[in-house]
Amino acid sequence: MQKRIVKLKNACIASAASAVGRHEALGPMGDRFDYKDTTDRFGADTWEQAESAMQKRAFETLMKKSGLDVGDFGAMFAGDLQNQCVGSSYGLVEFDVPYFGLYGACSTAAEGLMLAAMCVAAGHYDRVAAVTSSHYLAAERQYRSPIEYGAQRSPTAQWTVTGAAAFSVEPRGLAEITEAMPGIVVEKGITDASNMGAAMAPAVVDTLVNYFRESGCSPEDIGQIVTGDLGFEGGSILCEMMLAEGFDIRKNYNDCGMLIYDRERQDKHAGGSGCGCSAVVLASYYLEKLRMGELKSMLFVGTGAMMSPSSIQQGLAIPAVAHLLKIESREA
Amino acid sequence: MQKRIVKLKNACIASAASAVGRHEALGPMGDRFDYKDTTDRFGADTWEQAESAMQKRAFETLMKKSGLDVGDFGAMFAGDLQNQCVGSSYGLVEFDVPYFGLYGACSTAAEGLMLAAMCVAAGHYDRVAAVTSSHYLAAERQYRSPIEYGAQRSPTAQWTVTGAAAFSVEPRGLAEITEAMPGIVVEKGITDASNMGAAMAPAVVDTLVNYFRESGCSPEDIGQIVTGDLGFEGGSILCEMMLAEGFDIRKNYNDCGMLIYDRERQDKHAGGSGCGCSAVVLASYYLEKLRMGELKSMLFVGTGAMMSPSSIQQGLAIPAVAHLLKIESREA
Repeated sequence: MQKRIVKLKNACIASAASAVGRHEALGPMGDRFDYKDTTDRFGADTWEQAESAMQKRAFETLMKKSGLDVGDFGAMFAGDLQNQCVGSSYGLVEFDVPYFGLYGACSTAAEGLMLAAMCVAAGHYDRVAAVTSSHYLAAERQYRSPIEYGAQRSPTAQWTVTGAAAFSVEPRGLAEITEAMPGIVVEKGITDASNMGAAMAPAVVDTLVNYFRESGCSPEDIGQIVTGDLGFEGGSILCEMMLAEGFDIRKNYNDCGMLIYDRERQDKHAGGSGCGCSAVVLASYYLEKLRMGELKSMLFVGTGAMMSPSSIQQGLAIPAVAHLLKIESREA
Repeated sequence: MQKRIVKLKNACIASAASAVGRHEALGPMGDRFDYKDTTDRFGADTWEQAESAMQKRAFETLMKKSGLDVGDFGAMFAGDLQNQCVGSSYGLVEFDVPYFGLYGACSTAAEGLMLAAMCVAAGHYDRVAAVTSSHYLAAERQYRSPIEYGAQRSPTAQWTVTGAAAFSVEPRGLAEITEAMPGIVVEKGITDASNMGAAMAPAVVDTLVNYFRESGCSPEDIGQIVTGDLGFEGGSILCEMMLAEGFDIRKNYNDCGMLIYDRERQDKHAGGSGCGCSAVVLASYYLEKLRMGELKSMLFVGTGAMMSPSSIQQGLAIPAVAHLLKIESREA
C-alpha cells in the first residue's frame, strides 16, 4: 500500500473570493462574503446560467482583490454539480486559462485545491486557480424537482448552497497547504438520497482514521477539523463513528453545512450542502482565521456523494468520497 | 501570460488495458483490445451499470497484465460521460485507491493521463492510474433518446464508443509523457449538438497552434498528431483551419474516431467519439507502436465538448477543450 498522505511545500492559498445568493446573504456569515445577489439570478435568464454567472463573478472578484490578471494563472481546476459540469465550463469560458474539469460532487473545492496545490508544489505552475459553485434552484430541478412543484423536504435533507468561490494557489501566502490526502470511494449501503450526510460520514471516517494513523497526529493536535458538508445529521454520525474508532473529535469539529445558515431562523433542515458550501465558508471564514493567526491549523475535509438521479432510480446505494487538506497559518 | 507547456520527467505510461463492446470488437482494431463483450452488457442489468462493469474490467485487466495489486496504486484519476460521472464512481468503488473524479467530456483520457503524469513527475506518487469509459447505449439515452425510439442520426453525428481503458503511469516505461499542455475552453458559436466535431475543432486549433509556437516544433517534427475524437467532420475542419494558420498537419494527422470503426462496413456516420474512444485506441494501438519503437513520438490531443443537454435546450453554443500530451518512445 502506498502512503496516502502527500506532503507538500510551497503551496499556499494566497487569496480567495466568494459570491453568494439570498439565503446565504441572510445567514450568520452574510457579512463575510465578497459579493451577494439577493435575487439569486446574477443577471442571467435561467438558474443554470445564473450559476455560471456567479462562478464568473467569483473568479473576477478574486482577480480584483488580488490585483491579478487572467494571464497570471497557469491553469484552473473547476467543477460543480450540474450535469456535465456546465456551471463551470460556461462560467469560465471567457477566461483564457487552461482548464481542468473536475467532478467531486460537494468535495470539489477540496479536490480542486488539492490538485492546484500538488501542481504548484511541483513547480509545474507559479499560480493556479481552484473554482467551484452550486446553485440551489439549478440543483433542485436537476436532482429532485423544480421548487415550483412544492415538494416536501425530508428532515435529513440538506439545502444546496447558492454560492461560488475562487482560490488562488501560489508558492507564498498566509495559509499553506502542507498535506493532501485524497479519499477512497466508500459505499456503506445508504440508498436514501435525502440523507447524504449518512452516506458521506463513513467516507470521512475512512479518511480521518487513516490520516491520524498515518500521520501519528491526534485530533487535539489540530486547531479545527472541518468537514464540508455533512450537515447536522452526517456531522453527528461522524462524531459517533469516530468515537467508536477511538478518536474523539467533538471538541474541535465543525462542518461548513452547519455554519452557513442560522438553524433557528432559517428553515434549512439538516444544514447546507453543495460544492459552493464548503468553498464559500473556507474562502470567507476559515481562511480569514488562518490569515489572522487566530487558527493555527485545520483539516479541511471535502465530502462528496458520488451518485446520480439515475443510479438512485436504479436502486444503487450511494458511494461517497472525502478529500483531506491540512492547512496551516503562516503569519506575516 | 504563463507558459502553457509543462515539461515533465520520469512519467511514463508503463502499461494499459482496454475493454470494449460489440461494434468495437467488429471494427478494424477488434483484435487489439484486451477484453470484448459482444452483448455490450458486461454482466450488468442496465446500460449504465454495464459501463461501470466495463470500467472495472479494464482496471482489473490492467492489474492482471502488469502483475500489480490495488495497493500498488497511489491514486486514480477517472471520469466518464454519465451524469455525475457515475460510470466511474460505481465502476471503481471496489478498489481502495484514492480517487480523483474528472469531467472532461471526451478529453477525459488525456486529462487523466496529464494529471497522473504531473503527479508522478512531481514524486507525489510512484504509480497512478488513469481510467475512463463511455457506453453507446447509456450515452444515447442520456444525451439523445433511448435507441429503441429509432431516432434518425445526422450525417455529422459521431457514434459513442462502448469502451473503457485503464493506464498505469509510473517513473519508468516504454512510452514517456514528456510534455503536457492543458487546453483553454473555446466556444465559437456552434449550437448543433449533432456536430461535435465542428464545435471541438477550434479548441484543437488553439491548442496545436499555441503548442507549435511555444515549443518551436513543426508538425513534421512529430511522428503522429492524433486527436480523440473529432471524427471525419471535425478532422477535416481541423486540417483546413490549421492550414489557414500556416501549419500543414495533413501528412501525419489522424483521429481515434476515424480509426476505430470501418467506414465502409460499419454505419457510423462521422466516426467514433466518447471518453472511451481515444482511451482504447491509445491503449491498444498507439501505445503498442510507441513501445515497439515503430512510432518515435506523438501528440495525443484529447478533445471534449463541454455542454449538457440542458445547455443545448437553453440555446447555448457548445464550449470545447483540447488537452495535449507529447508521448515519446523509450525503447527497451
